[in-house]
Amino acid sequence: MAAQTASHAPAKAPHVDETIAELKALYGDRVSTAPAVREQHGKDISYHEAHLPDAVVFAESAEEVQRIVQICARHKTPIIPFGTGTSLEGHISAPNGGISLDVSRLNKVLAVNSEDLDVVVQPGVTRKQLNEYIRDTGLFFPIDPGADASIGGMTSTRASGTNAVRYGTMRENVLALQVVTADGRLMRLGRRSRKSSAGYDLVKLFVGSEGTLGVITEVTLRLYGIPESMVAATCAFDTLEGAVNTVIQTIQSGIPVARIELMDTYTVDTVNKYSKLDLPPKNLLLLEFHGTEAGTKEQAEMVQAIAAENGGGNFAWTNQAEERTKMWQARHDAAWAAKAARPGWGMWATDVCVPISRLAECILETQKDIQANGLYAPIVGHVGDGNFHLTMMIDPDDPTYLPRAEALNDRLVARALALGGTCTGEHGVGIGKIKFLYEEHGEAMSLMRSIKKALDPDNIMNPGKIMGPIN
Amino acid sequence: MAAQTASHAPAKAPHVDETIAELKALYGDRVSTAPAVREQHGKDISYHEAHLPDAVVFAESAEEVQRIVQICARHKTPIIPFGTGTSLEGHISAPNGGISLDVSRLNKVLAVNSEDLDVVVQPGVTRKQLNEYIRDTGLFFPIDPGADASIGGMTSTRASGTNAVRYGTMRENVLALQVVTADGRLMRLGRRSRKSSAGYDLVKLFVGSEGTLGVITEVTLRLYGIPESMVAATCAFDTLEGAVNTVIQTIQSGIPVARIELMDTYTVDTVNKYSKLDLPPKNLLLLEFHGTEAGTKEQAEMVQAIAAENGGGNFAWTNQAEERTKMWQARHDAAWAAKAARPGWGMWATDVCVPISRLAECILETQKDIQANGLYAPIVGHVGDGNFHLTMMIDPDDPTYLPRAEALNDRLVARALALGGTCTGEHGVGIGKIKFLYEEHGEAMSLMRSIKKALDPDNIMNPGKIMGPIN
Repeated sequence: MAAQTASHAPAKAPHVDETIAELKALYGDRVSTAPAVREQHGKDISYHEAHLPDAVVFAESAEEVQRIVQICARHKTPIIPFGTGTSLEGHISAPNGGISLDVSRLNKVLAVNSEDLDVVVQPGVTRKQLNEYIRDTGLFFPIDPGADASIGGMTSTRASGTNAVRYGTMRENVLALQVVTADGRLMRLGRRSRKSSAGYDLVKLFVGSEGTLGVITEVTLRLYGIPESMVAATCAFDTLEGAVNTVIQTIQSGIPVARIELMDTYTVDTVNKYSKLDLPPKNLLLLEFHGTEAGTKEQAEMVQAIAAENGGGNFAWTNQAEERTKMWQARHDAAWAAKAARPGWGMWATDVCVPISRLAECILETQKDIQANGLYAPIVGHVGDGNFHLTMMIDPDDPTYLPRAEALNDRLVARALALGGTCTGEHGVGIGKIKFLYEEHGEAMSLMRSIKKALDPDNIMNPGKIMGPIN
Repeated sequence: MAAQTASHAPAKAPHVDETIAELKALYGDRVSTAPAVREQHGKDISYHEAHLPDAVVFAESAEEVQRIVQICARHKTPIIPFGTGTSLEGHISAPNGGISLDVSRLNKVLAVNSEDLDVVVQPGVTRKQLNEYIRDTGLFFPIDPGADASIGGMTSTRASGTNAVRYGTMRENVLALQVVTADGRLMRLGRRSRKSSAGYDLVKLFVGSEGTLGVITEVTLRLYGIPESMVAATCAFDTLEGAVNTVIQTIQSGIPVARIELMDTYTVDTVNKYSKLDLPPKNLLLLEFHGTEAGTKEQAEMVQAIAAENGGGNFAWTNQAEERTKMWQARHDAAWAAKAARPGWGMWATDVCVPISRLAECILETQKDIQANGLYAPIVGHVGDGNFHLTMMIDPDDPTYLPRAEALNDRLVARALALGGTCTGEHGVGIGKIKFLYEEHGEAMSLMRSIKKALDPDNIMNPGKIMGPIN
């Protein structure tokens, strides 16, 4: 189970010394067995136990990735792809040891096809780096998990963020991939065309596969035109139902809202303190509208009317870039705000996603559960998608705290599954959510295992993730 | 190769007599070996050679589908799922004989979740039936291939249509499935929540798998609110480049156009005659805008301005439902209009999809190719997606015609692939496009084969489709 400080060095993978020797012969200093480097590569920003790889290799090209995988495959040495290390469910840990394959130096934008609204990047490019790079084209890439994650990692976890309600997740925005398979072949999946009915959708199979089927060496992404007008708004509600019903009715009305986020009162409190804001201390919706001047104004007015019918007040909106940016940065910093509210405590972020009609019920039950168990876990949510997060804070001096948080997480997931939802909307499975997958997928887990065995018969690609141990 | 009239009864699949006997014992008259019924189930509306199944069984529940698959699996008898028979690449033919599993009687809408904007249907429900059923909810399902296809078939071919530029294809709109696997297990794939990062995306793997991995028994689809205002427009261009550049600039500007379709001058001519319209005899864009009254007006004005800069004239628009319906029905009837223009000729519909920046080039080269070879093949296109269709008409009295059309199709696909596109944007592979897949996917074909073998080791699920013969 999860533990904050332990960082295991597992029993060495068999033949790993031969693998490391071969890698060193080829890549010299770019292969490291230094404890600090291994520690940094075995531990993400989650609360899960770290497991260190036996070595880290820094690849600099797709061909190098291929060669590294070939060497590991020959020795059946585990390979754990690594981008920025910002995953939240232990995706990069090495429970079977092996080689952490760091692709952060594959950080080039290879092609911007502005007429086609797509871009080809190496996996180590981060989302902010990409948007900086394409700023002058009038285009942007909307997917924004909290961290400045790598595109390769975002692809692997099927990441999303605040814009998903309008622009979709990585699932909808990865057009094509280049990958190295477990047997060391470099190949392309998918095409740049917007649609295709030409065979199995291997791209979508690799999106969200968390490095268990191969290593991503190139990603082709959809881009979008930067809207003429962007308007941000906030609206406060006494009741959570009022906020959620506003979301449901907004989406049913076909209003193409770009962002619609919820902060519960606890989150608003911590965010006000951390980001020096003055948001109303209620259940708060944060919204953004994209379109023309007239269109965004009309959208904002329509949502304001819907909110008013659901008891929403303090409707405030702005089209000033600086204020917008400040508000969304505060939203992205919500987890750090929670951490600042409990100095010295650990942080365990978890997420679930339910059909939106069950969202109010799921959040209210969860709030009661948090209070009844004396825990501190502010809630934020991408409510347009039915997705919400708990930032569970863990008191390291109280040994009952971690087990109580773990039990809360178990009940949260059980609640989401019972309401037709999923155990994770965007963080992924890693090692943290393996135990919930059978309950979620039932028999279908056997298909995942069959596919894993077919594409990686020696189980060298990020073993122990998603499906746990495989024989 | 393709031939209009032949309808082969292949050598019987081994043990098929035992399979039929067992099915008859269970389902009596709902199992047919009558030649007319087999003929109707072995031939879709394509130009491909028909291969008749040995028998047809009409299932009436998911449990019956499961039992039928179990019987076939025991005898290793091929199973070919059948919905409405409107596929275009020979998807329902039975090159290895076997059982056509007709799911058209599984035609119930099981649940409409209007707050969640989703619906659960059986696979035999057709797209028009679904929209009729949900009309009073204020919601609609946008995916509209030409035919009134079944939702099961549309899922299997990853279908799309005229609304895909705004609402996506079946890929984006299938949330969850219930399927019977090749070993006769009934299972659920995916959840009703809008997002999930919980493991491999099996839903997206089954979407577009053309019945080769299992039989679909239930589909959960996204729905959308019927917009307050819908405005249709047409705009005529002397040059194809002008029309396509209008499309590119419209999409780059972020105008959320709902439909943007192209008819070349040949298509306009046949459509005017067939549907008794008076469209300008030029390269024509047909558009539709969805939104508020003010929003659709603004969108139409913005596109008119873009079109004017690209030489577009005769801009006409309407918000009258009757005129809109007439125009889109004419667009959907374009293939029949081509057929009416060549009475007694055969029809072979093909499609490709390219990155939109290469669309003008691809269509112009194709038009030249058609003319240079003395063929008749009007072009229509979902140009917002870079997807276009040729309705190749075949003179049955000229034995050189069919080979010339086939060669045209080969060159069309080669051209699309060379431009970064795909051999089919929405029709699927069936038996017609197998020969192009290796060129399109290269090494990745081996992953498709590995997955097929892992999930259907005896190759009983729609054998011979997508990948051709498998050993």
